[in-house]
Amino acid sequence: MQHPLSLYNTLTRKKELFTPVHAPFAGVYLCGPTVYSEAHIGNARGPVVFDVLTRYLRHLGYTVRYVRNITDVGHLESDADEGEDKMAKAARARHIEPMQIAEQYANLYQRHIEVLGCLPPDIQPRATGHITEQIQLIEEILANGFAYEVNGSVYFDVPAYNAAGRAYGKLSNRVVEELLAGSRDNLAGQDEKRSAADFALWKKAAPEHLMHWPSPWGEGFPGWHLECSAMSRKYLGQLSDIHGGGLDLMFPHHECEIAQSQGSHSHSDEARIWMHHNMITVNGTKMSKSAGNFVTISELFEGTNNTLSQAYSPMVARFFLLQAHYRSPVDISDDALQASRKGYRKLMNGLRLLDKLQLPEGVAPDADTEKGDAELRKLVADVFVGLNDDLNTAKALANLFNLVRKFNGFFANLATLAAVSKAALDEATTAYRTLVVDVLGLVDEPRANAEDLLALTLGFYQEAKTSKDYGKVDQIRAALKGQGIIIKDLKTGIDWAYEE
Amino acid sequence: MQHPLSLYNTLTRKKELFTPVHAPFAGVYLCGPTVYSEAHIGNARGPVVFDVLTRYLRHLGYTVRYVRNITDVGHLESDADEGEDKMAKAARARHIEPMQIAEQYANLYQRHIEVLGCLPPDIQPRATGHITEQIQLIEEILANGFAYEVNGSVYFDVPAYNAAGRAYGKLSNRVVEELLAGSRDNLAGQDEKRSAADFALWKKAAPEHLMHWPSPWGEGFPGWHLECSAMSRKYLGQLSDIHGGGLDLMFPHHECEIAQSQGSHSHSDEARIWMHHNMITVNGTKMSKSAGNFVTISELFEGTNNTLSQAYSPMVARFFLLQAHYRSPVDISDDALQASRKGYRKLMNGLRLLDKLQLPEGVAPDADTEKGDAELRKLVADVFVGLNDDLNTAKALANLFNLVRKFNGFFANLATLAAVSKAALDEATTAYRTLVVDVLGLVDEPRANAEDLLALTLGFYQEAKTSKDYGKVDQIRAALKGQGIIIKDLKTGIDWAYEE
Repeated sequence: MQHPLSLYNTLTRKKELFTPVHAPFAGVYLCGPTVYSEAHIGNARGPVVFDVLTRYLRHLGYTVRYVRNITDVGHLESDADEGEDKMAKAARARHIEPMQIAEQYANLYQRHIEVLGCLPPDIQPRATGHITEQIQLIEEILANGFAYEVNGSVYFDVPAYNAAGRAYGKLSNRVVEELLAGSRDNLAGQDEKRSAADFALWKKAAPEHLMHWPSPWGEGFPGWHLECSAMSRKYLGQLSDIHGGGLDLMFPHHECEIAQSQGSHSHSDEARIWMHHNMITVNGTKMSKSAGNFVTISELFEGTNNTLSQAYSPMVARFFLLQAHYRSPVDISDDALQASRKGYRKLMNGLRLLDKLQLPEGVAPDADTEKGDAELRKLVADVFVGLNDDLNTAKALANLFNLVRKFNGFFANLATLAAVSKAALDEATTAYRTLVVDVLGLVDEPRANAEDLLALTLGFYQEAKTSKDYGKVDQIRAALKGQGIIIKDLKTGIDWAYEE
Repeated sequence: MQHPLSLYNTLTRKKELFTPVHAPFAGVYLCGPTVYSEAHIGNARGPVVFDVLTRYLRHLGYTVRYVRNITDVGHLESDADEGEDKMAKAARARHIEPMQIAEQYANLYQRHIEVLGCLPPDIQPRATGHITEQIQLIEEILANGFAYEVNGSVYFDVPAYNAAGRAYGKLSNRVVEELLAGSRDNLAGQDEKRSAADFALWKKAAPEHLMHWPSPWGEGFPGWHLECSAMSRKYLGQLSDIHGGGLDLMFPHHECEIAQSQGSHSHSDEARIWMHHNMITVNGTKMSKSAGNFVTISELFEGTNNTLSQAYSPMVARFFLLQAHYRSPVDISDDALQASRKGYRKLMNGLRLLDKLQLPEGVAPDADTEKGDAELRKLVADVFVGLNDDLNTAKALANLFNLVRKFNGFFANLATLAAVSKAALDEATTAYRTLVVDVLGLVDEPRANAEDLLALTLGFYQEAKTSKDYGKVDQIRAALKGQGIIIKDLKTGIDWAYEE
């Protein structure tokens, strides 16, 4: 497969040409949500970016297997393997079973991500659905000497791992000694760990813990980092092509995943390319549940967040998430969303023009369209240049607007289409549709509201009756009947009912 | 909780007053789909009936936990524990991972069932997500002496179970000796089983088998019947209140579930009430994938099945599934669906009337409304009588139509509302809305199509321009601008674009 797509790899700190392990197959894994409460719009950035990534890989001809997991156990309140399980805590607060919490929020997340235009992942595995696989992974790490059991819990042994020449810290550029120095105090109360850099693979379940499974070390539950290593291996093999998530997952989550994979089966880093997207900020501060400054996806769609003055549609939100390069932070605000709405509608109006770009009858094409064709092809090529440069959707969109401007110019005076060949024009309009709809996933979101238009139409009906324009009365009756709606002339006014 | 809801229990072969084990909690389990291909409309009957059941239980005041599972492993082509796994077969045919098949069809099923108006179940557990729990259950059954291991597979020992005084066959009214006599030939090639009545709890994975997990008996996968016993126990306890599915699941699936539950943990039958809905037929023959005479849910919604002349909407399909009692067979046809559409629209027109039922100004209520009130209350009570009689939605709907007729009569001459008190009328209209929308889950499905109405409106705009009625021109421009649509007066005609 010949293409110039390069992606920035956090592990090597440079942009690399994308060359999958087993072309034409491409295995992609995105760390999904912990489903203990409603997601905020910052949580949607990963799915939207990876949706465009996988759409683009498919456009390039790859057979993609895209895995996005759901975390429904093991994610504790603190990254230091302490505190209550987030799922169990939410369940306890509402006096229901943790799996009811998981079901509710996994459904909500899936629906939101879907209306944001994301195609469903090929596999959406759950942590609780892979307990067996996680236990197997721990057994392998134990057998390799990189973990130890204490009182029914199992911890990854970071010093032993590094002593064996591996490099815990290489993804996030951390030095274990510094980690230890910085976190000495944190070891208080965690005396099961031999080193503060160690992390839990399996935790013994306290008697009051709602979620637990049998294991060779007694009843317990898996550590949070373990699931992704186990599920990535199960569905994408020992070395996948791309593994991603937010910058906040780089450490400890992804660092631990690499250690688990290296420490169990092989010397592979679990994935060749590690991609990290930047955060959404609100007034310059990272959006986060713990900080309390977040806009949930429902609030954005319904206009019920105090930070924003109005509602924004799913496609406007998608455009907003794509108008910046994924590695840049993005600040959410009315201004930014209104600019996104303008941009989105410009692209949609562009789509509506494509079929209308026809040389008027009687106008002949120019004898030489070489220059015009080259210009048009350059505009299209520039959009791909943006995508190929580390999936820079900001550049790609800017270049799409140049293309729209060109189309608008043609449409304003169709005779100017004489400057380009039909072939070049067809190429450009096809590419535009492919880029906007298939790759960026921006589709038409009808603006017209049927209920309002029905009221308007009934108003016209009333007028026609008053002015005794029976031709129009019949026309409107027939048009609505075609939609299964019967107009009722009541003593009290005009009403309608469904045709029975 | 005082109410007269009775349900037919297949296990006791009589209608029983519903009295849950731990009121006000009610635990309900419905056997869900094996997600290896698209569901047909017959597969939607269970979810729709159980949706009404759980909605009604909630209406009666119960705190319901509703579990509907997804089968993604272990369901073999033949009920005799032979043949390929349905999931693995579909995956092999398409050269993809079985979990991709599961993801695709579980998503499609969930979307279809949702547009059919079903609320999501509280928990939707998957068989592959509960391997640990299934292995535990097998270990218990083995420990109790009701199972045996052969060559890495484990079978339930039906003769041993019945010798211990249990009653395999009691749900489906089968006698084990007859089963044995009838199936002697089937044992050929199944020589691992000691008796033809035995069934698989765990199957050894052949080397080419795509789905397998480690177990105390080697690599293998669970038998199909096992998952429901394991997941019902995990989420609803040893004895749930209601367990259901289609009549075709009564034997062997549910019979085996009872044996597994009885044979593992206790003397409980897994569920107190076993409910079975009847089948959908096409020209009198049971709809089934193997028989090839089925209408998929998409085909019904899109009108692409040869059996039917047109498309029917999700709410019409829901009405169709509810217009018969769940224990009766229902034949699908254009006639039946058109009758359902008529019925559905009648109910929706009823909903639209409720707010308009007001005594006209200047008309005083009658001095004595006792008779009128009693009549109205009887009409409402009759609908509940239908529901309480084994969830007879056919009766309930027939009685709802009597209520609609009454409402239509009032609306035709509002002065006749003088015959009933405001309190009785409010009770009746509130009950109607509750029954139609909240309990039966029939909601308004807007008929008006925004695109057609927009075209109609642009036609009016063109006419107004031609006749120089500039007042109307401005009115239409403003109305559409309010919806973010700008009318464009082009040389070539009228067009529109999104406001940018």
